[in-house]
Amino acid sequence: MINKPLAPGSTIGIFGGGQLGRMLAMAAARLGLHTHIYSPQHGAPAFEVSAKQTVAPYTDLNAVKEFASQVDVATVEFENIPLDTYEHAAKYTTIAPGQTALAISQDRLAEKKFLTSHGIPVAPYFEISRETDIVSAIYKLGQDGILKTRRMGYDGKGQIRLGTNIDPDVAIKAYNGEPAVFEQLVNFNLEISCLVARDFKGEIVFYDCPKNVHRNQILAESHVPANIPEDLEKLARAFSAKIAEKLNYVGVLAVEFFAVGGVTDTPLIVNEIAPRVHNSGHWTMDACVCDQFENHIRAVAGWQLGATRRHSNTMMVNMVGSDMDRWNEVASSEGAILHVYGKDEIRDGRKMGHINYLYDID
Amino acid sequence: MINKPLAPGSTIGIFGGGQLGRMLAMAAARLGLHTHIYSPQHGAPAFEVSAKQTVAPYTDLNAVKEFASQVDVATVEFENIPLDTYEHAAKYTTIAPGQTALAISQDRLAEKKFLTSHGIPVAPYFEISRETDIVSAIYKLGQDGILKTRRMGYDGKGQIRLGTNIDPDVAIKAYNGEPAVFEQLVNFNLEISCLVARDFKGEIVFYDCPKNVHRNQILAESHVPANIPEDLEKLARAFSAKIAEKLNYVGVLAVEFFAVGGVTDTPLIVNEIAPRVHNSGHWTMDACVCDQFENHIRAVAGWQLGATRRHSNTMMVNMVGSDMDRWNEVASSEGAILHVYGKDEIRDGRKMGHINYLYDID
Repeated sequence: MINKPLAPGSTIGIFGGGQLGRMLAMAAARLGLHTHIYSPQHGAPAFEVSAKQTVAPYTDLNAVKEFASQVDVATVEFENIPLDTYEHAAKYTTIAPGQTALAISQDRLAEKKFLTSHGIPVAPYFEISRETDIVSAIYKLGQDGILKTRRMGYDGKGQIRLGTNIDPDVAIKAYNGEPAVFEQLVNFNLEISCLVARDFKGEIVFYDCPKNVHRNQILAESHVPANIPEDLEKLARAFSAKIAEKLNYVGVLAVEFFAVGGVTDTPLIVNEIAPRVHNSGHWTMDACVCDQFENHIRAVAGWQLGATRRHSNTMMVNMVGSDMDRWNEVASSEGAILHVYGKDEIRDGRKMGHINYLYDID
Repeated sequence: MINKPLAPGSTIGIFGGGQLGRMLAMAAARLGLHTHIYSPQHGAPAFEVSAKQTVAPYTDLNAVKEFASQVDVATVEFENIPLDTYEHAAKYTTIAPGQTALAISQDRLAEKKFLTSHGIPVAPYFEISRETDIVSAIYKLGQDGILKTRRMGYDGKGQIRLGTNIDPDVAIKAYNGEPAVFEQLVNFNLEISCLVARDFKGEIVFYDCPKNVHRNQILAESHVPANIPEDLEKLARAFSAKIAEKLNYVGVLAVEFFAVGGVTDTPLIVNEIAPRVHNSGHWTMDACVCDQFENHIRAVAGWQLGATRRHSNTMMVNMVGSDMDRWNEVASSEGAILHVYGKDEIRDGRKMGHINYLYDID
């Protein structure tokens, strides 16, 4: 726990050196806070905007100790760093968020159990430990479902979309033996997310919920305002606040929801939680007084949270893979705010940058 | 001249590693452009957010050659780097803005001659090369004036405010023998500045003119809108565009004006020009679609200029010297956007950071 705000000149340690770490590092720099980035990857995107860098595998606990001893607080840009690493760091510095949030979000089953135990609805699911569980799951939940590995899934990775009218034999064949979850396919009207920031004192601020559009299982666009009923936004905030509180969370937390009104008896179910800044919050960089990256830094540094007020309507469009070839066209289009992540190589499905468009609030 | 836009991954060289270089480097990073900072100062504020750094005196022409050979374009964060340095760099890379802009703004006399030769009004002035010139100046311009050294003046440095009813003997005593200019003291109603960006093709964009308030000869506040008559803003833009064009300027240029309507026969006179991003444009970081730093980078990198549209009313307040002791109070005040420059030591008169406040446009 950080009891008093870390003064400018202090150092924030960040595990992970991708675009989220990069944008966190720039937010910290604006506040006069140094960053020290830990990444196994040489030339990680966050390195060039940070004061200090450690290149080492996450499993190198000596390097973790060395790193943690040099920073005033350590945080993460993504939830899938090994728990051992994070817990080891906690011996030498304050960590925020705490390891529970990571542990839960690293395991789909634990996440679903955590949510349901607190009365937060998720899609009906069934634990899969062996092939025969799949038959049971289909018998219990019906033949429309998705088989998801419990660990290391993001951007649709580790998911086996079985679709409708699943033949149990086909499902068993697709199953690779890893611990998994069979999730009922729930038709949803739209997807929204809720971004909250919570500080060490338990104060919470919310950003307006964006409406999210996915393509090829990767976030393609976020629209704000989402133009959803006020009740729905309120419910999303209430669920998200409850999650943050139950995790005793510090930092920015994103909760992805499916709006399933009319399909189930609850208007919203949680798709997943991300204990970190989130792609569906990138529009805050240009449309809000204080963006998600700065609020994450403020939270973990023990500062008062910044104003989440949105001064403009906005649309965020991801630039994935070869979309980046269009950088000049985008940069030349009126009012498009281009963010490029500085990755050395364009690859299919790789998030290379994003564009924020701003519009006057009606 | 940059004929086609430098692609992300290219490198912008910046002479100077202070807060302006730092904010330029972050703007470049957002666009996926690397920066290489050249500064004689170890641990210069811009270093920690740049990909590469050179620490060497400006007079080390080998270091300048090495630096210039490694960048795709070189620019400056301040106008007072030695001309020899900049001209040497020009042998190995494109420079923007060109050296003429620097040469003129480094010498108050050359600047005033340049402006008047293009019909742009300045305060009546008299060249001072020796003590007796002061007597002539007072005889010709009257006893209310300011003696300014021709070179290396900023934030009131190098200025001898003689005030009203100057005793020539006192003035002579204050004069240190350096080439100087005696400037008539002109009463002004208010001070505004005009920030323009101009690209290699000659396209020009303008930001709204801020009204500026100085304290102890250092900029204290900028207010936007300035609430000045439309004609005055138009005239400021016309003068600034003319200056940029006559200099064949590339990048962001700031022109400081005194509004002297009713005092002289022109409503505006130019106080001075700054061939760089400018403190009175810091509000653009949070109130505009594309800020002055990004537009400077866009201009020198051959990109199309970004939209200068302002989505909010705003006030910028500088944090000078011990103002920075109030960082936590500022960071905790609703809607204050804090920018800290990462300087290691607080000194009197040193610009340590600034605050942007945003308000809805009426």
